[in-house]
Amino acid sequence: MDTAVPPSSSVAPASLASPSLAHPSYKASPRDMANAIRALAMDAVEKAASGHPGMPMGMADVATVLWSRFLKFDAAHPHWPDRDRFVLSAGHGSMLLYSLLHLTGFADMTLDELRRFRQLGSRTAGHPEYGHAAGIETTTGPLGQGLGNAVGMALAERMAAARFGADLVDHYTYVIAGDGCLMEGISHEAISLAGHLKLGKLIVLFDDNSISIDGPTSLAVSDDQIGRFKASGWATASVDGHDPEAVAAAIEAARTSDRPTLIACKTVIGFGAPKKAGTAATHGAPLGADEVAGAREKLGWSFPPFTVPETILQSWRQAGSRGSEAYQAWTQRHAAHKDRAEFDRRQAGELPAQFAATIEAAKKAVSAEAPKLATRQSSQRVLEALSPVMPELLGGSADLTGSNNTKAKDMAPVTAQNYGGRYVYWGVREHGMAAAMNGIALHGGFAPYGGTFLVFTDYCRPSIRLSALMGQRVVYVMTHDSIGLGEDGPTHQPVEHLASLRAIPNLLVFRPCDTVETAECWALALAERHTPSVLALTRQAVPTVRTAHTAENRSARGGYVLQDSHLPRQVTLIATGSEVALAVEARARLEADGIGAAVVSMPSWELFDRQPASYREEVLGATAVRVAIEAASVFGWERYVGPRGAVIGMTGFGASAPAGDLYKHFGITADAAVKAAKARL
Amino acid sequence: MDTAVPPSSSVAPASLASPSLAHPSYKASPRDMANAIRALAMDAVEKAASGHPGMPMGMADVATVLWSRFLKFDAAHPHWPDRDRFVLSAGHGSMLLYSLLHLTGFADMTLDELRRFRQLGSRTAGHPEYGHAAGIETTTGPLGQGLGNAVGMALAERMAAARFGADLVDHYTYVIAGDGCLMEGISHEAISLAGHLKLGKLIVLFDDNSISIDGPTSLAVSDDQIGRFKASGWATASVDGHDPEAVAAAIEAARTSDRPTLIACKTVIGFGAPKKAGTAATHGAPLGADEVAGAREKLGWSFPPFTVPETILQSWRQAGSRGSEAYQAWTQRHAAHKDRAEFDRRQAGELPAQFAATIEAAKKAVSAEAPKLATRQSSQRVLEALSPVMPELLGGSADLTGSNNTKAKDMAPVTAQNYGGRYVYWGVREHGMAAAMNGIALHGGFAPYGGTFLVFTDYCRPSIRLSALMGQRVVYVMTHDSIGLGEDGPTHQPVEHLASLRAIPNLLVFRPCDTVETAECWALALAERHTPSVLALTRQAVPTVRTAHTAENRSARGGYVLQDSHLPRQVTLIATGSEVALAVEARARLEADGIGAAVVSMPSWELFDRQPASYREEVLGATAVRVAIEAASVFGWERYVGPRGAVIGMTGFGASAPAGDLYKHFGITADAAVKAAKARL
Repeated sequence: MDTAVPPSSSVAPASLASPSLAHPSYKASPRDMANAIRALAMDAVEKAASGHPGMPMGMADVATVLWSRFLKFDAAHPHWPDRDRFVLSAGHGSMLLYSLLHLTGFADMTLDELRRFRQLGSRTAGHPEYGHAAGIETTTGPLGQGLGNAVGMALAERMAAARFGADLVDHYTYVIAGDGCLMEGISHEAISLAGHLKLGKLIVLFDDNSISIDGPTSLAVSDDQIGRFKASGWATASVDGHDPEAVAAAIEAARTSDRPTLIACKTVIGFGAPKKAGTAATHGAPLGADEVAGAREKLGWSFPPFTVPETILQSWRQAGSRGSEAYQAWTQRHAAHKDRAEFDRRQAGELPAQFAATIEAAKKAVSAEAPKLATRQSSQRVLEALSPVMPELLGGSADLTGSNNTKAKDMAPVTAQNYGGRYVYWGVREHGMAAAMNGIALHGGFAPYGGTFLVFTDYCRPSIRLSALMGQRVVYVMTHDSIGLGEDGPTHQPVEHLASLRAIPNLLVFRPCDTVETAECWALALAERHTPSVLALTRQAVPTVRTAHTAENRSARGGYVLQDSHLPRQVTLIATGSEVALAVEARARLEADGIGAAVVSMPSWELFDRQPASYREEVLGATAVRVAIEAASVFGWERYVGPRGAVIGMTGFGASAPAGDLYKHFGITADAAVKAAKARL
Repeated sequence: MDTAVPPSSSVAPASLASPSLAHPSYKASPRDMANAIRALAMDAVEKAASGHPGMPMGMADVATVLWSRFLKFDAAHPHWPDRDRFVLSAGHGSMLLYSLLHLTGFADMTLDELRRFRQLGSRTAGHPEYGHAAGIETTTGPLGQGLGNAVGMALAERMAAARFGADLVDHYTYVIAGDGCLMEGISHEAISLAGHLKLGKLIVLFDDNSISIDGPTSLAVSDDQIGRFKASGWATASVDGHDPEAVAAAIEAARTSDRPTLIACKTVIGFGAPKKAGTAATHGAPLGADEVAGAREKLGWSFPPFTVPETILQSWRQAGSRGSEAYQAWTQRHAAHKDRAEFDRRQAGELPAQFAATIEAAKKAVSAEAPKLATRQSSQRVLEALSPVMPELLGGSADLTGSNNTKAKDMAPVTAQNYGGRYVYWGVREHGMAAAMNGIALHGGFAPYGGTFLVFTDYCRPSIRLSALMGQRVVYVMTHDSIGLGEDGPTHQPVEHLASLRAIPNLLVFRPCDTVETAECWALALAERHTPSVLALTRQAVPTVRTAHTAENRSARGGYVLQDSHLPRQVTLIATGSEVALAVEARARLEADGIGAAVVSMPSWELFDRQPASYREEVLGATAVRVAIEAASVFGWERYVGPRGAVIGMTGFGASAPAGDLYKHFGITADAAVKAAKARL
């Protein structure tokens, strides 16, 4: 790893903080301000006995330039909708962000919180956690995600500006990304999207320190990052990340570019650490007492742990209130804006007034009409109804628009020429789409949904998990949700995906059985303020089973008795989605044979599990033999059928054949359900 | 979409097949040969009433050049280890591959199979399925995966050549990839790896047709692909994909390059279709009778469906036997090679003779020593023991070598300068690593394993699924397998991952509880010939509980009674991994309170589920109250604990804090298990 050790001149004496910097008359330099970050990062990691000091120390100079001269924010009003967004994609460097928030005066980021770094219940988690403190714009740590989020934020900014004008929306999105972020595949999807959509107000500061966990990046990567970003239509610059003026000039230029900009900032990881700087040893572990002492000496920082001299703190606090006037001016423009109420509603994620009535009307119409439709088509019907009354609805698909049925007729494409559009052609970029949707939701002002095949939730699963962890209203429209997909075969047929998604905390997985339930599930998904949803929808047509209209959203309870038994109930058939029709058929045959059977439709396990035990027992039938039917892995269904019950489902991968053949081949039939029930009576 | 319609000159009359081409004296041109592919693709899709004709028709000329002039293969010996590998990364164009296999004379790809395209039980699935027919080198369809596999194959070739010499190993790897493959993030990881490792014998033919499902690619992407590949260290070329000589010249040049080569082949999707060529309409649906008739006319192809005139078939069959001499020469070199037996053993994936004894010795040593070790460290111990006796073991990590404990001391790095190494620094590329490991396993000669954190199985899940679907022996070493990871927090703490992985068919998920079980699980994983494995390993130290040595691999049954009750059994405590120690503690307390309790260690659900019902009931205790303990989502545990039982586990995301604090905070303690058991007695 010696090759990566920087020349000692990188920490030149000339740039060291003077010992007199505690003197009241001392004017803090950018390097002094940066050293405050370095010291806090070292100290917090040391106290926690775990963490990542290298990145904050390496990027302190760059972050100081950004936060003290460019970033538009007001620490006193951290939720100002038009603030610049700052995304620490290299989330392991969390102490960089926490230090900045503390130094600039974010009220909830106290020195005490820094002392509690990585402790239970602190705001200062190992990686930045959205919601733990103001100023944490997104949860980062899984590499590359922040970059993807930032693309969504920058796109949301352009789209919101197109709707409400620059008086209300006109801000930048800044990202700090590391080598790890740029090695992850998601970075390709993100930068390709940003370049295509010409997101000129997106500025990425690349911590180009040539070190990753295993050692010098030369062990694993030889990419020309500048060339790569250029190939995706970005403006680029390369600067010495320890030269504030060079960094400032690059940011200045980037702000006027009509393309997104990558600024590769050549830095020394662990800058200031006398022995470990420039090596992987600074990346993910405390420096140790000796090295910290040595760094203090080298940086000319003679203060005790967690101590920032008043002179330097003053400069930082001034940086934190720089945006105060701009904020005040914005509030005045906002107060005078004709669309203020609508802007606020969308920012708050409140549903439009006509929402409930629209859903109700749609339900009423389809329960009367009783169409035989694929639920993906049902979903399109719902979208066609909702789109005109819910302008914040933002559609999209990862290159499966016609298959996912995600584009309502009145949705114009979002393009670099028309950010006023409402439909994003995400391209074959499931991961980038999902990460960007997280960014759009975090930014506020939109209700994003995006489609692909259910099987390809695997391609965007890291971002789905973050939707759930951050509690963001993002709707995943996942069609072709079983072997019913047919001929495309096992690579395209989800089997384990429903179980895998149901296992994710704080994620609602909906599998509606007909158009009525599809409308209900959409209503539930969009009404959730802090939970993402997956809508699992069929490729193949299914009959309408909810033919009697009711204003009640029956799907809201997760599972309910769709058809009760005429005879005393001996069997409960539990099904979701396309298999509800099979359960209905099985019930008819059981009843014809003198066996009382009820059908339970269970569009959402999560909502069902939230119901009182008495309701759940009533629905499932305390003494009934329970048979679940779902054209997916049987995994997890034991929860509802119990040891006496049966699950009609998949135990292996699918196959390539027409859907009807597959259902027969894999034994997912009403006949199988009837047999399983009878065998258990 | 009109913008993408090609000028009519693209289908120039001069290049059309002559009506006389059925005449015995006719010498088939490359275009004639390509038209045979086009016709078969159209016909098969038409007959199946589903499929993707556009890509085979567009790439038929390129494929004809490759398969008739360059690809080293012998249709009569499709498993020849030194054959060139051909990967159809754009797997939806499966009829291109099936047509080529049929035309060149692969015995199992009969015309009848083409007629049964996409039907149940045929060799001709919607997407190419590994194992369905000879010549299908890998399962493709999920975009970008084939490219990742090919990087692994090309690397395996270099590595095998470094071990056995060019006499036995000296072949190319060719890929056909589409716009979709190149939009996926995995493509970045793959091409970045290939460039870094200077895989000069990897040649990618990019079907540069500017069309994806949603329409012209200009809707979603503006990347300069040539610039992008150059930035990753590739050689590049751009050619007219309908000009055989241009394609041939580019391949010729690529074969002598010391870098991997991208050949962008400008093509017209659905080439030959009179109205739909150049549009997304040809991508994923039958052309329709009229359009097929029109294409026949335009291409000068006057033969009935599924009919290839003898003249053209002859030319193709000659192409299919071109490699016959080279194959014979190779078999002679092989027969004379001093390391032939070892080469064959590795190719066949057979374990070395000393394997069982090595594992046994390791078990014996650690059960006597009874170390307190993190199971990731236990894993390293096993690797240190196995590595010297199992030279085909190929290690690696996605930039977490020191954390995953994946590098045995005697493993030198694999680099562009030394393919003789045995350890790959995969970089922060979990997805690329997993796809490449699939390619390495498919190529043969190695037993690849690779590490990252368990939570990041999400980043490579599409490839893990393909390991399982293809039945490849790939071992995923996934450490930091619970909240025991501690301070890095919820983004890095797996919760739902064990359940999500257990839900994947044909995947063994192991969670060993100590060093002995870790050795047993490694032995099981490496002995599986057709199943991949995940080893979920702790960050934190755990005690050795298997202190009495036994030659039997107890983990082979998936779950077993680790400690029986002294008193009559009333409670069964079932645990995995780090929580087995908690179960042991809970058992001691229950027994002290006069309640008979047994501990079941269950390192693998899948293996346990394979046991006879009588064994399972005996282990779990037919009448015992069952309490499962696992620091992961409770999802799925109902299978073993039943409605009377309890699960001590996670119901939400983790948090950032020291591990001990988290176990207490989330109530995953021996105390909780004792209470849960008592409450149910």
